Amino acid sequence: MFTSQHLKETAQVDSASVQPLPNSRKVYLEGSRPDIRVPFRSISQAVTATDSGEEYNPDILVYDTSGPYTDPKASIDIRKGLQPLRAQWIEERQDTELLENLTSEFGRRRSQDPTLEALRFDLKRQPRRAKAGKNVTQLHYARQGIITPEMEFIALRENQKRYELGSEAVEELLNQQHSGQSFGAAIPEEITAEFVREEVAKGRAIIPCNINHPETEPMIIGRNFLVKINGNIGNSALGSSIEEEVAKMTWGIRWGSDTIMDLSTGKDIHETREWIIRNSPVPVGTVPIYQALEKVNGIAENLTWEIFRDTLIEQAEQGVDYFTIHSGVLLRYVPLTAKRLTGIVSRGGSIMAKWCLAHHKESFLYTHFEDICEICTQYDIALSLGDGLRPGSVADANDEAQFSELETLGELTKVAWKHDVQVMIEGPGHVPMHLIKENMDKQLECCDEAPFYTLGPLTTDIAPGYDHITSGIGAAMIGWYGCAMLCYVTPKEHLGLPNKDDVKTGIITYKIAAHAADLAKGHPAAQRRDNALSKARFEFRWEDQFNLGLDPDTARSFHDETLPKESAKVAHFCSMCGPKFCSMKISQEVRDLDEKQVAAINAQAHEGMIEKSKEFLATGSEIYHKA
Amino acid sequence: MFTSQHLKETAQVDSASVQPLPNSRKVYLEGSRPDIRVPFRSISQAVTATDSGEEYNPDILVYDTSGPYTDPKASIDIRKGLQPLRAQWIEERQDTELLENLTSEFGRRRSQDPTLEALRFDLKRQPRRAKAGKNVTQLHYARQGIITPEMEFIALRENQKRYELGSEAVEELLNQQHSGQSFGAAIPEEITAEFVREEVAKGRAIIPCNINHPETEPMIIGRNFLVKINGNIGNSALGSSIEEEVAKMTWGIRWGSDTIMDLSTGKDIHETREWIIRNSPVPVGTVPIYQALEKVNGIAENLTWEIFRDTLIEQAEQGVDYFTIHSGVLLRYVPLTAKRLTGIVSRGGSIMAKWCLAHHKESFLYTHFEDICEICTQYDIALSLGDGLRPGSVADANDEAQFSELETLGELTKVAWKHDVQVMIEGPGHVPMHLIKENMDKQLECCDEAPFYTLGPLTTDIAPGYDHITSGIGAAMIGWYGCAMLCYVTPKEHLGLPNKDDVKTGIITYKIAAHAADLAKGHPAAQRRDNALSKARFEFRWEDQFNLGLDPDTARSFHDETLPKESAKVAHFCSMCGPKFCSMKISQEVRDLDEKQVAAINAQAHEGMIEKSKEFLATGSEIYHKA
Repeated sequence: MFTSQHLKETAQVDSASVQPLPNSRKVYLEGSRPDIRVPFRSISQAVTATDSGEEYNPDILVYDTSGPYTDPKASIDIRKGLQPLRAQWIEERQDTELLENLTSEFGRRRSQDPTLEALRFDLKRQPRRAKAGKNVTQLHYARQGIITPEMEFIALRENQKRYELGSEAVEELLNQQHSGQSFGAAIPEEITAEFVREEVAKGRAIIPCNINHPETEPMIIGRNFLVKINGNIGNSALGSSIEEEVAKMTWGIRWGSDTIMDLSTGKDIHETREWIIRNSPVPVGTVPIYQALEKVNGIAENLTWEIFRDTLIEQAEQGVDYFTIHSGVLLRYVPLTAKRLTGIVSRGGSIMAKWCLAHHKESFLYTHFEDICEICTQYDIALSLGDGLRPGSVADANDEAQFSELETLGELTKVAWKHDVQVMIEGPGHVPMHLIKENMDKQLECCDEAPFYTLGPLTTDIAPGYDHITSGIGAAMIGWYGCAMLCYVTPKEHLGLPNKDDVKTGIITYKIAAHAADLAKGHPAAQRRDNALSKARFEFRWEDQFNLGLDPDTARSFHDETLPKESAKVAHFCSMCGPKFCSMKISQEVRDLDEKQVAAINAQAHEGMIEKSKEFLATGSEIYHKA
Repeated sequence: MFTSQHLKETAQVDSASVQPLPNSRKVYLEGSRPDIRVPFRSISQAVTATDSGEEYNPDILVYDTSGPYTDPKASIDIRKGLQPLRAQWIEERQDTELLENLTSEFGRRRSQDPTLEALRFDLKRQPRRAKAGKNVTQLHYARQGIITPEMEFIALRENQKRYELGSEAVEELLNQQHSGQSFGAAIPEEITAEFVREEVAKGRAIIPCNINHPETEPMIIGRNFLVKINGNIGNSALGSSIEEEVAKMTWGIRWGSDTIMDLSTGKDIHETREWIIRNSPVPVGTVPIYQALEKVNGIAENLTWEIFRDTLIEQAEQGVDYFTIHSGVLLRYVPLTAKRLTGIVSRGGSIMAKWCLAHHKESFLYTHFEDICEICTQYDIALSLGDGLRPGSVADANDEAQFSELETLGELTKVAWKHDVQVMIEGPGHVPMHLIKENMDKQLECCDEAPFYTLGPLTTDIAPGYDHITSGIGAAMIGWYGCAMLCYVTPKEHLGLPNKDDVKTGIITYKIAAHAADLAKGHPAAQRRDNALSKARFEFRWEDQFNLGLDPDTARSFHDETLPKESAKVAHFCSMCGPKFCSMKISQEVRDLDEKQVAAINAQAHEGMIEKSKEFLATGSEIYHKA
């Protein structure tokens, strides 16, 4: 594409991604050292007018994945990338060294290719790797009892403490919290850095943070933390430019994507990834076999360990934070898929199945699994063990092929842990509602509570064009049951490549699923935002209702379709009932009842009703038992 | 509005609603008599090209709510309304009589008002009522052991039998069905008319079918049948014409709405309703208190039993099939809502709360409940007992106000049953996932298994603009747990009046929820459509994939955004992976493995792997236990 020829000079940030959200400002919470600055979005609210004067509604702090893009004080230039906020922490640990050259042969070739000059990201920084014999994973530190700055950052970030408080009466409303049903998850009232360390040490949570991606704001994936979501981006042979992919990333994190996976399979995969990572404040995951396959011109059986290994290192030194690797596709599992309605639908899974069949042996992803772990220890890359045999239809859910692979992934989890490599497990796919919990429980059991990371699952196959919804249902449920991260599905699933609108719809749908799961688990910090929004709604603070929601822009535009005037946004009614009668207005009157009035109601009404009820019950029950 | 002045001459059906869906034809299954003609949509499919020739893919029959609008043989003129297909059945029972005049005073006044002439529906038919002393409800017949034509119609409709069969191999794929988890629901392999009768007799299911709405194609609401959905339409003081409302109805049923509620609160409510009912092949529900309130100029305390009674009869003689009535809002429950975050959010509930407080006594909906039942027996109107105290926020879910009212609704259910009046119970609202089952179980217990009919529930409050999704999650779950009908929520919920696009989005979302619930319950006929669609998807039969989905138009347009050419719709790849590599293509190769090859794989691979696994497990486990 012509535009990418001059990318190095012309690339600009997507302007839609750099505005703060309405009535929101970026605030930072400082940790034990000044360079631990944890970002939040602080949403300010209007006061409530009451008979006894104005009631103050406190700012609501929400978890913020959007990075510096929504901070007007930050200077954003995607040609320069983000500030390396973790650089100092990594440096201080003194267990890494800077490399003169890229280790990967492919990476070196690309970096020296003059034809790529114009579209290459202009990175001045040298790649970094563990010193010989050192292991630089957060799991390694955690097991030694070390609390890293990353862990402290996460503890502050996950707490979402109520730094802004309203009056006692307001706090009583905002602090309501259902106790939840946790299915064995145990989220403490206050997340401490030590708790973060423990969860990582036990393998129950991971912190994806490659030492070559110092731009990341640390985040954690584990079922005793907020449920996270991932958004997929990436070009394909059929289109999309580097600038568009960066824009999809900044757009995705604006709406709440906790991690981004770059699934590019088109041209300039290496350069595209560099641009994304340098500009991403969230961890970036990849499926390295996709790029490896491009290197062998799409012929799966020509893949080798050497090519794959070079790809891992190439990506490791760019800063990829987690790798999806389909090591669980064993030769003997492949024929189990023949009986399926939809065979193998995972791209990675089918690549490896093809390889195994062609060579009639186990894949290098399995036989070299310990070598892969070794690489991960040198850069702190988390493994996301791919479910190459996930079901592609509800008919195939929870079948022998799927669960056999899951058992192997459980074995590999233990191997990764042996190397102090952080690991999570990928899950399906298509699963009807009643089989979701079985799948979740099986994962916890097979993989000794390593975090689960699922695609949906889609709860029915019959709605192409709406698979964000078919899967949002399953995602909310599996999040409740204990899944740690939900990979989004867009409306284009099964049909085409998502555009920016689809990315947003997918992200918002998955934020809903993740938040519904947090509520159901009884996450101590989750319900405050619902309560604040509902209070605003009940009090006809329209702007606050919009701004506290996941997507203020859409809420406002929907409202304005019916009532476009500004005055309607301070009106004490809405378009459903109109100005003459309003249900919310009437229930305000109920609140205004004084104690005496309530006592009178209870005395009189109760008296009358007991008689009436008895009478009804007597006649009604009689008939009922006859039926 | 000027256009409505000439409605009687100019009204036209919405052209978007009268096309058959692609590759679909209307088929009718005939019952024991020629006038029992049960409609289905029959979706034809392409053949599958295999090495051994063409494989025939049978037509897939799906439940069809769209009425004659999608039948090219039907002559549609919304000025004339639909054919009264049940007229003969009603006539034959000889328990009803034609009335010379409308019974309702208001109805008479409107019918004689010359200024309404131009927008009045030109109904030639006289209103019908039970003969003195007769009870004409389906429940009354059922309890006497009578199987009505309506019941037989429903039995045929619910079965979705496999009238079109493929080859044995194809049927083996299509007939796969997970066994489901039913939570006490018991759906037989074959639905018989006698089963329908029994379920109605037990009060576990209702057939809303007013004798003055002979245009309805009978349908049933009960947890041992397919989960149903309702779409709300209706004008408000702020806008919308009669023609638009009829178009919303025809549009809603095109996409699968099983019933329609007309919630009009604006002008010409009476005439709007007449147009809707005369053109609706699905049952129409209303909330009569809305119209009654308009009659007293929006002043709730001026409502009287007499006005309400006249409104019920007015609507009964137009053919409303079910009434939402908030009889459970007792005076003593009203103060229970004062402590809530969001008080009373149901419009009907707040009207009655206001009335109770103003008069300091129980409402006429409660004190005259038996009179209401009497009216219902004369027209066969089902009662939908409204949940006036439903929670308007997750904070208020399953609280004392809500459950107290539910207990009263349970008592009223027994009273309705005493009169042989069909009854269902309305439910919330806003409920976090972990409290949904408690709510469902409480309803089954309080209301002796009368059908539950819920709005959502919304599983979080924080996504205005996306409440079809926040509630679609809850709807799917409560449908699985036993809810019989799901009232849709559109993207405009809390924000504005839904337009046609919103209606469609709401309907499709709720079809997804209902179908996901049917799958999870293990409904014997549910999974065939998923299997057919997944088979089409796996075999790259793009057109079939679109057409078997809930919304072929959107699926096709999403596909065409990336690959617009017609040739791409027969291509054996898709835009995700591109032409060079395709996961589905590869898994086809796995299918082509012969027995010998599989045996060799199992022998060799198994041998090798046992050793490898042992080794991994040994080293891995050791580390794990140290951690």
